[in-house]
Amino acid sequence: MKKKYIAEIIGTFALIFCGCGAMTVNEITNGAISHAGVAATWGLIVMGMIYAFGEISGAHFNPAVTIGFAFAKKFEWKEVPKYISAQLVGAILASFLLWFLFPESQFLGETTPAEGFPAYKAAILEFLLTFFLMVTIINVSTGSKEIGTMAAIAVGGIILLEAMFAGPMTKASMNPARSIAPALFTGNFEHLWLYIVAPVLGAITAVSTCKLVKDDQCC
Amino acid sequence: MKKKYIAEIIGTFALIFCGCGAMTVNEITNGAISHAGVAATWGLIVMGMIYAFGEISGAHFNPAVTIGFAFAKKFEWKEVPKYISAQLVGAILASFLLWFLFPESQFLGETTPAEGFPAYKAAILEFLLTFFLMVTIINVSTGSKEIGTMAAIAVGGIILLEAMFAGPMTKASMNPARSIAPALFTGNFEHLWLYIVAPVLGAITAVSTCKLVKDDQCC
Amino acid sequence: MKKKYIAEIIGTFALIFCGCGAMTVNEITNGAISHAGVAATWGLIVMGMIYAFGEISGAHFNPAVTIGFAFAKKFEWKEVPKYISAQLVGAILASFLLWFLFPESQFLGETTPAEGFPAYKAAILEFLLTFFLMVTIINVSTGSKEIGTMAAIAVGGIILLEAMFAGPMTKASMNPARSIAPALFTGNFEHLWLYIVAPVLGAITAVSTCKLVKDDQCC
Amino acid sequence: MKKKYIAEIIGTFALIFCGCGAMTVNEITNGAISHAGVAATWGLIVMGMIYAFGEISGAHFNPAVTIGFAFAKKFEWKEVPKYISAQLVGAILASFLLWFLFPESQFLGETTPAEGFPAYKAAILEFLLTFFLMVTIINVSTGSKEIGTMAAIAVGGIILLEAMFAGPMTKASMNPARSIAPALFTGNFEHLWLYIVAPVLGAITAVSTCKLVKDDQCC
Repeated sequence: MKKKYIAEIIGTFALIFCGCGAMTVNEITNGAISHAGVAATWGLIVMGMIYAFGEISGAHFNPAVTIGFAFAKKFEWKEVPKYISAQLVGAILASFLLWFLFPESQFLGETTPAEGFPAYKAAILEFLLTFFLMVTIINVSTGSKEIGTMAAIAVGGIILLEAMFAGPMTKASMNPARSIAPALFTGNFEHLWLYIVAPVLGAITAVSTCKLVKDDQCC
Repeated sequence: MKKKYIAEIIGTFALIFCGCGAMTVNEITNGAISHAGVAATWGLIVMGMIYAFGEISGAHFNPAVTIGFAFAKKFEWKEVPKYISAQLVGAILASFLLWFLFPESQFLGETTPAEGFPAYKAAILEFLLTFFLMVTIINVSTGSKEIGTMAAIAVGGIILLEAMFAGPMTKASMNPARSIAPALFTGNFEHLWLYIVAPVLGAITAVSTCKLVKDDQCC
Repeated sequence: MKKKYIAEIIGTFALIFCGCGAMTVNEITNGAISHAGVAATWGLIVMGMIYAFGEISGAHFNPAVTIGFAFAKKFEWKEVPKYISAQLVGAILASFLLWFLFPESQFLGETTPAEGFPAYKAAILEFLLTFFLMVTIINVSTGSKEIGTMAAIAVGGIILLEAMFAGPMTKASMNPARSIAPALFTGNFEHLWLYIVAPVLGAITAVSTCKLVKDDQCC
Repeated sequence: MKKKYIAEIIGTFALIFCGCGAMTVNEITNGAISHAGVAATWGLIVMGMIYAFGEISGAHFNPAVTIGFAFAKKFEWKEVPKYISAQLVGAILASFLLWFLFPESQFLGETTPAEGFPAYKAAILEFLLTFFLMVTIINVSTGSKEIGTMAAIAVGGIILLEAMFAGPMTKASMNPARSIAPALFTGNFEHLWLYIVAPVLGAITAVSTCKLVKDDQCC
């Protein structure tokens, strides 16, 4: 198997195990980690895995990001299904391990809109969150080399802040693989569609705006 | 439309949507995000957007910073109204979306002095906050190239800490566009003057002191 | 004595004094620091000490990391006992000072699984935590030079997030020296085996996977 | 007046205004900022000011650091009184402004040992805190140029974590100017001696150990 697929598997596994793990431990300990601690976990594991695997696979770890890069013509379309498969394998393995280690958890970090927050608004919010994420990714990855070195900090910071401010409303998924994996173990598929559709649309829209702010180097 | 104006619109939109969004979600969830979480959101979205757009527009996102750079002769005065217009468009769009998504919010992240904290003291504090911010921006942007790469971290850190320590007294605006946008939707203009005047004076004063610590390279 | 051993002593001393110190002060003040504050302390002292000593000793500060690097053929096996001895000296000195300064503490930051969390699951979790840590360390240290400069941030971030999300279940040791030192002063050796075996296995496994994602440059 | 003295005045002013300001606002709002927020403020203002002024004055902002650098023969002894004077001017100006803005504050961020924590232990702790700080500063500033660019992050991180874990016991001063300034306005000089003596000794000891881990480049 090619090295870059293994990098996507391990990276996405780490993301989901630590991020959903933080939500799971917070659930079963009645809040020992706190909302801010959960957000910090998400942001920092993304940062760490980008540093670890950025030079091997590009460190997508997210089907929406992979589709966004393909849409920007910075990634081959024929690689897209392979990357997404690798991401799903890593994510599902992580959710399986969390389910095994913490059987008392009901949610395993699943993503659902807050009670009373309508699904269409949750979809708008997930769209915007992924838009901001992909705007940052695409601009940082097409900027100067010095800025490229800081990509992990920029992207990890965006994940942290979006998990922080939007977490209470939608859990701030921005990532179909991240939402699909825990749903397979909790069996709650009610709002899964929005966590697949909205991030993909958000990433594509971000790439489109990139054309407006950069010369032809990005898409 | 020139690319740099679009960069200012998107960047300021992201800033206000995430920062004021954190305050709005914190309000309607009775504190799910916490004060520290709101401050982290402000600092990290500024950091992320500087990484995304720093090389395109200079990543001002703030009329006081734009005026400060013009005063330092590092930015053309004739561009100032265009940049400020772009910043206002982005900020107002963000506030509109927050008002649409969270109609139950009374404040939408608006800036007002704490009860019992006199307006003149709030103005002094906003002056000092913007002074520290612009001192950092002007020195980092006129320093060595290596330090320039870290500008986003330095500036994001200043925003985070100032939102942290001064937030309870004035909401730590430091940015007229950031204060004007939510006021248009809450209708509370009582203290808006101070959030326009004090940041601009603070930024100009910071640029003036720059002459005292640097050779003729900054102004 | 060679400079690199002194670097390992001082660095590990700082790690354990600050990290276990945070847990100790949190214990005797009934939570003044908070769980998130303890996690931040662990992550940031690792980051700081890597910046201080990375170019002198490689900044291991952890027997599992030292064994991992030897297993990866990036560190001489004959140096391993010397590094581990230096790490233990630094760690024990730190625990002694904490015991002297805070005699009212019962735990001194010792590592034990949460009540009701079985030892074998704690071992799996410590294995995974060290796996993620060593995956990051080995990939960052064999990547480009630019990424190498960011190693301290990447590794400190991983320590912070793992202490954050797994702390409530296992205290997130990932480091035999870090677990042995306080146990010598509290006399609680019940689960010490797992905090020695699991991190070493996790680090070795991480190095093995490195072969799968990188060309022959890492092991 | 030379540019570097003005840099030390403004930098130390910013440090004390923001750091002691966070403690003051936390006091008068009954904890709106939280202990972790106070620690983050201290760490981030140090980071920001090092980025702003590091290339102008070396960004000491602390008499113990200035004396440490002189002891390391990396700074001229005849400059020491001038730097310390500048630092005191900045610190006292900050405390005066905090006293003016927040007259209801009793403490203004002053440093005293926790009730029941003996002064000699507080002195040992302040000695160790400054030792860790100066070990980081001296090694980072004598390392490679790439690491030098990260000095502000390393040092800001150390300040943040030490304020976090040791704040509840001694307020984590590490800086005579930082302790003298608020004492002038609260009139509480009882333990001031230890906040002057211990940091200076800690900084000098750190420089001495530097000889043990580095070749003759540092002292």
